[in-house]
Amino acid sequence: MESNKSSRRRFLAQTAAVAGVAAGAGLAAKSQPASAQPHVFTEPPRRGARYSIDHMTHYTPLQDYQGIITPARLHFMQQHSSEYPEINIDEHRLTIHGLVDRPMSFSVDDLKRMPSVSRVHFVECHGNSSPARHDPDNENQVGLPVQYIHGMASNSEWSGVPFSVLLNEAGLKKEGTWLVLEGADAGKFSHTLPTAKALDDCFVAYGQNGDPLRIEQGYPIRAIVPGWEGPHNVKYLRHIKVVDEAYNTWNESMNHSVVRPDLGDKARWYHFAWGPKSVITRPSGGMEMRKGYVQITGLAWSGAGKVAKVDVSVDGGKTWKEAKIDGAVHSKAHTRFNLDWAWNGEEAVIMSRTTDETGDVQPSVA
Amino acid sequence: MESNKSSRRRFLAQTAAVAGVAAGAGLAAKSQPASAQPHVFTEPPRRGARYSIDHMTHYTPLQDYQGIITPARLHFMQQHSSEYPEINIDEHRLTIHGLVDRPMSFSVDDLKRMPSVSRVHFVECHGNSSPARHDPDNENQVGLPVQYIHGMASNSEWSGVPFSVLLNEAGLKKEGTWLVLEGADAGKFSHTLPTAKALDDCFVAYGQNGDPLRIEQGYPIRAIVPGWEGPHNVKYLRHIKVVDEAYNTWNESMNHSVVRPDLGDKARWYHFAWGPKSVITRPSGGMEMRKGYVQITGLAWSGAGKVAKVDVSVDGGKTWKEAKIDGAVHSKAHTRFNLDWAWNGEEAVIMSRTTDETGDVQPSVA
Repeated sequence: MESNKSSRRRFLAQTAAVAGVAAGAGLAAKSQPASAQPHVFTEPPRRGARYSIDHMTHYTPLQDYQGIITPARLHFMQQHSSEYPEINIDEHRLTIHGLVDRPMSFSVDDLKRMPSVSRVHFVECHGNSSPARHDPDNENQVGLPVQYIHGMASNSEWSGVPFSVLLNEAGLKKEGTWLVLEGADAGKFSHTLPTAKALDDCFVAYGQNGDPLRIEQGYPIRAIVPGWEGPHNVKYLRHIKVVDEAYNTWNESMNHSVVRPDLGDKARWYHFAWGPKSVITRPSGGMEMRKGYVQITGLAWSGAGKVAKVDVSVDGGKTWKEAKIDGAVHSKAHTRFNLDWAWNGEEAVIMSRTTDETGDVQPSVA
Repeated sequence: MESNKSSRRRFLAQTAAVAGVAAGAGLAAKSQPASAQPHVFTEPPRRGARYSIDHMTHYTPLQDYQGIITPARLHFMQQHSSEYPEINIDEHRLTIHGLVDRPMSFSVDDLKRMPSVSRVHFVECHGNSSPARHDPDNENQVGLPVQYIHGMASNSEWSGVPFSVLLNEAGLKKEGTWLVLEGADAGKFSHTLPTAKALDDCFVAYGQNGDPLRIEQGYPIRAIVPGWEGPHNVKYLRHIKVVDEAYNTWNESMNHSVVRPDLGDKARWYHFAWGPKSVITRPSGGMEMRKGYVQITGLAWSGAGKVAKVDVSVDGGKTWKEAKIDGAVHSKAHTRFNLDWAWNGEEAVIMSRTTDETGDVQPSVA
């Protein structure tokens, strides 16, 4: 408000040993709307020898919006290839083969005529929030907006056909306990998926936020594997091969299932599913702060189900307050939380901590 | 699926005396994705002498997506002017004056620093689904996709600041029972709103589906008045004048409140709030039908709260089946429903009927 003009200061904060810290200071405040900003292309991150071809990467500007829907064109993108495949939607086919009674081939039009589901889910790159990206001793990281630390996680309403419907059409054999998903991109990006997870809640998506998929999100179709690490959500999906053991595909580094029959419905696959997590999206690095009222806001999620509560600390973790949940809480989806804060103008370290419906609490990075 | 190719037929249906009828036949099936289709501009509808300047209108292509989120650029638009206002977001101000202790003026940046809410709500033009648009005797209407009959209703996640926060800042006087909202467009589009409704659940929105508002949706800010007829949701919002009686503004034809103290929290304003409603979005006019499995899908909503259930008839209303609700049910928001149907290839009249959480049932047009 007008009367607060004289007390504007720049936000100062240091990163700390918990995910969900607001990194602050440095960059100038932005006045243009988010939509006026171009896509952010950064140098392709190198991860040693695991990938032999370049990546293309977008980070989602989490600090620039309220609510939980990431606009489709701002959804993070990690492309395991230096260019997009050119796919004709009228010719593209999804085949299901291997351990099935009736190998099948579906056009995209076929898929759109089958029973559909629409669900709000996050997708998160398995390299998101890597410790190197919020190392308090790394001067290159201080002052970066949250986008560049935690921005490889996004959240959309996805529409498509359940794997359960597709596998039922093809006649899944009992011994078909694993699926190998393969994309139509040049690198034939592939990933294995336990059949049990596929039947539980996975689907082949053709829509995102009411639009067809964008090319960088796997147009015309991709897998959505709710709550599991990004690489499971194979884009440009072309083949589903039903097999009887986990394949160690080129693109994945782990292939060990953690069967938890003791947990029943709540079974988790620790090597695959994301645990509870949260990030403060505002205040964020570069934001101009004003003394007095500040709304702390962020996003929380869990790969195990719904967010149950989010606690926020403004004193580096000494004391915590429960944040307000704003809007709907979807399972395996971003959940918006807010906390009203009276800022006294002093340096502060803001942190958040999520508890999910299974009782799991977001761990400290330390 | 491949094996069904031989039984393709065109969908035939006639409109009938209930809203939510799938209008069929006529246009060729479309194979391009929705995003490849341009905005639809139609001739400005004329509504007699109430408006002295032209309209611009977009209809939402409801038949082209699953889920509940309308992409912001496909949100319906009814502009009471022949051009968009040019507004500089850094100079735009929202003033609150009249019956308040402290008249206030807020920049958009001020608003973004205040407590925010994000909610999924429909907005619907008060002229949507007009009887002339689904008159079974009007040959011009037969075969039109649902877009051109019911497409002036859309649904988004809106983010902004509650009216309750703004009015509290300004110090609402007890006698300030009505608000006059005025936009910054050339025609100064204005509408009155009971203060009680504003305090209940209305907010000043600056975001839609994670993006800033688009120019045709009121950039930089607009009112969101959940569940009430479209004209209440004043775009380009510039002034909120607090008054002690209903004003008969130039843009509105009704100004009579229906006070229902007997209904307590559940009070409805029958002249303002939309009742329960639904539309079948697929099958829709122009869609190529195949004998056998057909997923009937549509959207249901109510201005009084949440959708409780949706019934669907495939025999013109003789018998009804309860549809499956797909995904989240938000209050005063589009809700997706589906029904599996085995189509025998005969002519059929599909209808839907919504019941909301207050027990209200969608009436027949007859």
